[in-house]
Amino acid sequence: MGFAYFAGANFLLTLVAAILCVCFAPTAAGPGIPEIKAYLNGVDTPNMFGATTLIVKIIGSVGAVSAGLDLGKEGPLVHIGSCIASLLGQGGPDNYRLKWRWLRYFNNDRDRRDLITCGASSGVCAAFRAPVGGVLFALEEVATWWRSALLWRTFFGTAVVVVVLRAFMEICKSGNCGLFGKGGLIMFDVSNVSVRYHAVDIIPVALIGVLGGVLGSLYNHLLHKILRVYNLINEKGKFHKLLLALSVSIFTSVCLYGLPFLARCRPCDPSLPDSSCPTTGRAGNFKQFNCPKDYYNDLATLLLTTNDDAVRNIFSISTPREYEILSLIIFFALYCILGLVTFGIAVPSGLFLPIILMGSAYGRMLGTAMGPYTKIDQGLYAVLGAASLMAGSMRMTVSLCVIFLELTNNLLLLPITMLVLLIAKTVGDCFNPSIYEIILELKGLPFLDAHPEPWMRNITVGELADVKPAVVTLSGIEKVGRIVEILKNTTHNGFPVVDEGVVPPMGSRIGATELHGLVLRAHLVLVLKKKWFLQERRRTEEWEVREKFTSIDLAERGVKIEEVMVTEDEMEMYVDLHPLTNTTPYTVVESISVAKAMVLFRQVGLRHMLILPKYQAAGVFPVVGILTRQDLRAHNILSAFPHLEKSSGGKKGH
Amino acid sequence: MGFAYFAGANFLLTLVAAILCVCFAPTAAGPGIPEIKAYLNGVDTPNMFGATTLIVKIIGSVGAVSAGLDLGKEGPLVHIGSCIASLLGQGGPDNYRLKWRWLRYFNNDRDRRDLITCGASSGVCAAFRAPVGGVLFALEEVATWWRSALLWRTFFGTAVVVVVLRAFMEICKSGNCGLFGKGGLIMFDVSNVSVRYHAVDIIPVALIGVLGGVLGSLYNHLLHKILRVYNLINEKGKFHKLLLALSVSIFTSVCLYGLPFLARCRPCDPSLPDSSCPTTGRAGNFKQFNCPKDYYNDLATLLLTTNDDAVRNIFSISTPREYEILSLIIFFALYCILGLVTFGIAVPSGLFLPIILMGSAYGRMLGTAMGPYTKIDQGLYAVLGAASLMAGSMRMTVSLCVIFLELTNNLLLLPITMLVLLIAKTVGDCFNPSIYEIILELKGLPFLDAHPEPWMRNITVGELADVKPAVVTLSGIEKVGRIVEILKNTTHNGFPVVDEGVVPPMGSRIGATELHGLVLRAHLVLVLKKKWFLQERRRTEEWEVREKFTSIDLAERGVKIEEVMVTEDEMEMYVDLHPLTNTTPYTVVESISVAKAMVLFRQVGLRHMLILPKYQAAGVFPVVGILTRQDLRAHNILSAFPHLEKSSGGKKGH
Repeated sequence: MGFAYFAGANFLLTLVAAILCVCFAPTAAGPGIPEIKAYLNGVDTPNMFGATTLIVKIIGSVGAVSAGLDLGKEGPLVHIGSCIASLLGQGGPDNYRLKWRWLRYFNNDRDRRDLITCGASSGVCAAFRAPVGGVLFALEEVATWWRSALLWRTFFGTAVVVVVLRAFMEICKSGNCGLFGKGGLIMFDVSNVSVRYHAVDIIPVALIGVLGGVLGSLYNHLLHKILRVYNLINEKGKFHKLLLALSVSIFTSVCLYGLPFLARCRPCDPSLPDSSCPTTGRAGNFKQFNCPKDYYNDLATLLLTTNDDAVRNIFSISTPREYEILSLIIFFALYCILGLVTFGIAVPSGLFLPIILMGSAYGRMLGTAMGPYTKIDQGLYAVLGAASLMAGSMRMTVSLCVIFLELTNNLLLLPITMLVLLIAKTVGDCFNPSIYEIILELKGLPFLDAHPEPWMRNITVGELADVKPAVVTLSGIEKVGRIVEILKNTTHNGFPVVDEGVVPPMGSRIGATELHGLVLRAHLVLVLKKKWFLQERRRTEEWEVREKFTSIDLAERGVKIEEVMVTEDEMEMYVDLHPLTNTTPYTVVESISVAKAMVLFRQVGLRHMLILPKYQAAGVFPVVGILTRQDLRAHNILSAFPHLEKSSGGKKGH
Repeated sequence: MGFAYFAGANFLLTLVAAILCVCFAPTAAGPGIPEIKAYLNGVDTPNMFGATTLIVKIIGSVGAVSAGLDLGKEGPLVHIGSCIASLLGQGGPDNYRLKWRWLRYFNNDRDRRDLITCGASSGVCAAFRAPVGGVLFALEEVATWWRSALLWRTFFGTAVVVVVLRAFMEICKSGNCGLFGKGGLIMFDVSNVSVRYHAVDIIPVALIGVLGGVLGSLYNHLLHKILRVYNLINEKGKFHKLLLALSVSIFTSVCLYGLPFLARCRPCDPSLPDSSCPTTGRAGNFKQFNCPKDYYNDLATLLLTTNDDAVRNIFSISTPREYEILSLIIFFALYCILGLVTFGIAVPSGLFLPIILMGSAYGRMLGTAMGPYTKIDQGLYAVLGAASLMAGSMRMTVSLCVIFLELTNNLLLLPITMLVLLIAKTVGDCFNPSIYEIILELKGLPFLDAHPEPWMRNITVGELADVKPAVVTLSGIEKVGRIVEILKNTTHNGFPVVDEGVVPPMGSRIGATELHGLVLRAHLVLVLKKKWFLQERRRTEEWEVREKFTSIDLAERGVKIEEVMVTEDEMEMYVDLHPLTNTTPYTVVESISVAKAMVLFRQVGLRHMLILPKYQAAGVFPVVGILTRQDLRAHNILSAFPHLEKSSGGKKGH
């Protein structure tokens, strides 16, 4: 009967979360962090930061977490933070935007990027109550370009989060907001234990680090395989997606309810105060479950509770005999399985908490096994285990260190936490890339890596341009017909503008060609839509330009060429592209190596890069080609130049 | 008699420090942080990271701090860390370098830069025992280019520092290293106070922030003026430098010894344990000075002690009646004067501690004044005051926040510390730039700012090139005589290499000119020194090149053209510059704006940038000009184009 209620409630909650995700906003499923990372790298996933996604993510995350599934609210909170930032920046959802004057200041890509970074760091801060950790998370994991101004802007964002959080806690202290006011600002407080460790303790600490690295990369590897299988299932349709989510929910319920029966009842430690063991009907350690008075079931303490409380219980200090090693093994095995099968289902899910649970389990196991040989508390072993698995899987160091510092409020743990994180990251890096990179690759997002591959030094951008279709250029004053034709027949987003037969200001050398700049597809479509046409082939005067365009017109996006109607007569008219052209595009010479071009592309944050000829003579065309993000992706270059991979010595790894 | 000993010892210690600095390593004076910042920005100060500087800095810093001068060891420790990193990276001091094989891996500018960044963060870590704070300090204040790999490398460095520090503490716990083993890993521990604050406390906290911002920028302003006067004095010669340092030392001794007589003796709080009040002959609160038994002198508690202990005493919590407000005012006034006059003298000096002392004084004053109206402890007011003045003067936020977190070990202080820091920084930014920027400007180091000025968008690099002397180019195969002449008559460090009359591979267009690349002065001098000359005008074969040059030869630096002897016969010979040329320099088109060129220059970390013509025709020279760091400095552009400043609306500020 108890099981029926338990499983039924979980089933319903999962159903709600999954239906919302499947039907209304598929982008709300999963953590959202990889997509945010890709967005900040310059790759936009459609509908990622919309109002629907936000609402589905909030409700879905509440549902999925309450359903007792093995997933966290951290990733979703990061995504929620970014959604809110994006919506605030553009003045509301797409259809009902506020058109306030000051909102225009945010109407550029850089500010949008900065806002979303601030949102992500605030999300981490809200999830872990770790303001500095949030800033560092955004810096280390999420952001591609970092400006010093961003450091204190994200910091300001997280400061506001903390102040608001504290204010709510103050208001809710009287108990009229349910469980909300409970607990302090620090989630898993272990500050009241005095940490003592000696040189000998380095050995188990290093062991945890190595274990974390190995298990973390193993987890990444297995999750990769399972996500591939899930992708195949999910592709079959909405019903299959739902079915997958619901079967995971039922499996979770069965395990959580059934497994505690395997553990035997253990007597409470008589030295503890009466009220603390066993606990029934409230959060806390030592769950009674089916045991007699003054006895408790240690596995139920870990399983039949919220995930947050499970972490608190397994981190608990000065309770060296609370958990039997067998219970911990069952707990670890169960959460390994759940952590692998739960992540890919169609509900909002974070990776942090499952990994913390897994890691703390083997950390505590090791602590129990070390028993008399160590002075470090078992609770701290659990903390170190969690940290090691996080570093082994996510490959972050400084941000994790600060998050753990802020989670546990024990500064004396810092040196050994640092050691564990560094060892785990180093060991993990030997095997495979971080979990977020694996997900990015699985989703097929063209993420641009920070470092060019070594073989990219052996190929020039000129060679790259040679194997591409010839570049499509426009004249400064172009026929409407040609623009329409080019826009319809190509998918390029930028076109070089070249003036032929101009006279350079230095005189004498007539018949020169001039590279005027780069014009964007969006602006060309806009010209056609607004019909800024000229009867004859002439340049527009400055006053005409001022009359015709405003910067707000040009910021408009999303008009498609198919929606634009141009009559036969208009086809014969002209457009002066000069005022619409970006006259100062970044350029490279054709002899530059791809590696160097990629550094420029990524460091400055470009979308298009023009290639100039290294020769100077009459008849040489002033543009050799144009490079985009796709051209610089290692995978695409290698498919055109297969011999390069061989020269890199087969060291491609993944 | 006591005064004579006190002043005499201080005088001697200052004398040692000052003589070392003045005679052996003038670069060791001051904090060294601005020079490190400049180095990482691409500006090398000669003799900054040498072995002599290191030794003088260590001894000088010990002398200056022991002499009781109002300066800290933090800046010097950062410099010491960087020196050690630099020396380790190059295998020892310039004259006695180890030539280990693996050291060659560090023999490039990027790795040298990374090593020095790691050294700087380790220095902060050693100074404050703040590993995460050290990493963030390097990120926020010191580094110009930040790579994600650097984050965990600096983190690894600080982790090692903490582990070594802890190991020494463990060894020294028995007391056989003097005072070293005393105290824990946290310097100013205030963790055992439970911080309670409410919405009302926001007001004094905000007040501290505003005060910090105003006083910080005032301090920056006054220090700027005083440093200018000091520069005039110091220019008069070594004797004047020494005299200045010694008079400051005597003034400090007189004040520290004399002022406590102004304060009256106060009875010890009877609730305190006997041994804690008064203290004599050891570090601690409640100095007895000239008072009777069970009485103490509060001003002596702050003045007649080491600077570290003074901070510890003024931060002390749960001692609300320890200091009279008059004593605090005297203390604040004294340290304001000392903080201003001490910094510029010729000894190694840090800025952190003087600012912490000043800030904590007015913080504690405010706390005493607020008295019954607040629930926040006076000691915490002192901490907040120190934080606010640091932010107001140095304009760091996140790193200061973490450093204070790690200094005081009280995570609950975090929200209000963040608030104070942000307010102080924002207020300070309204008045003047940060103290380090002021020092950089005073030293005349061509630091390249992160953000181009707004008026830089209104000028193209072509216009910039027009007002410069015409660019000096070399042919691919050049006469030795011309190379010698150019090297002797110009000071450029890079020369474009242009081949005329080449046939492009596409055929037909004969008589083209080709931009081959950029050759460095250092390599040209090397060619002359090694006499790699050709009898006739021809290109070298690849096997010849491999025979002639090794990459180690090319990494050699520091040979001057004046030291190279070339005979008359050799002057008529030729050099094939092709193998020495960097064929893939970064380039910009002449129509690009200076603002965009500067973004490229700084983001990619360049020394030279070639300007290409936007016209393509026969007879157009393939290089318009070359840009260096000096060309892109706002000051230099404005002196050539004075009208630009007007168009920026006179908003230049400083």
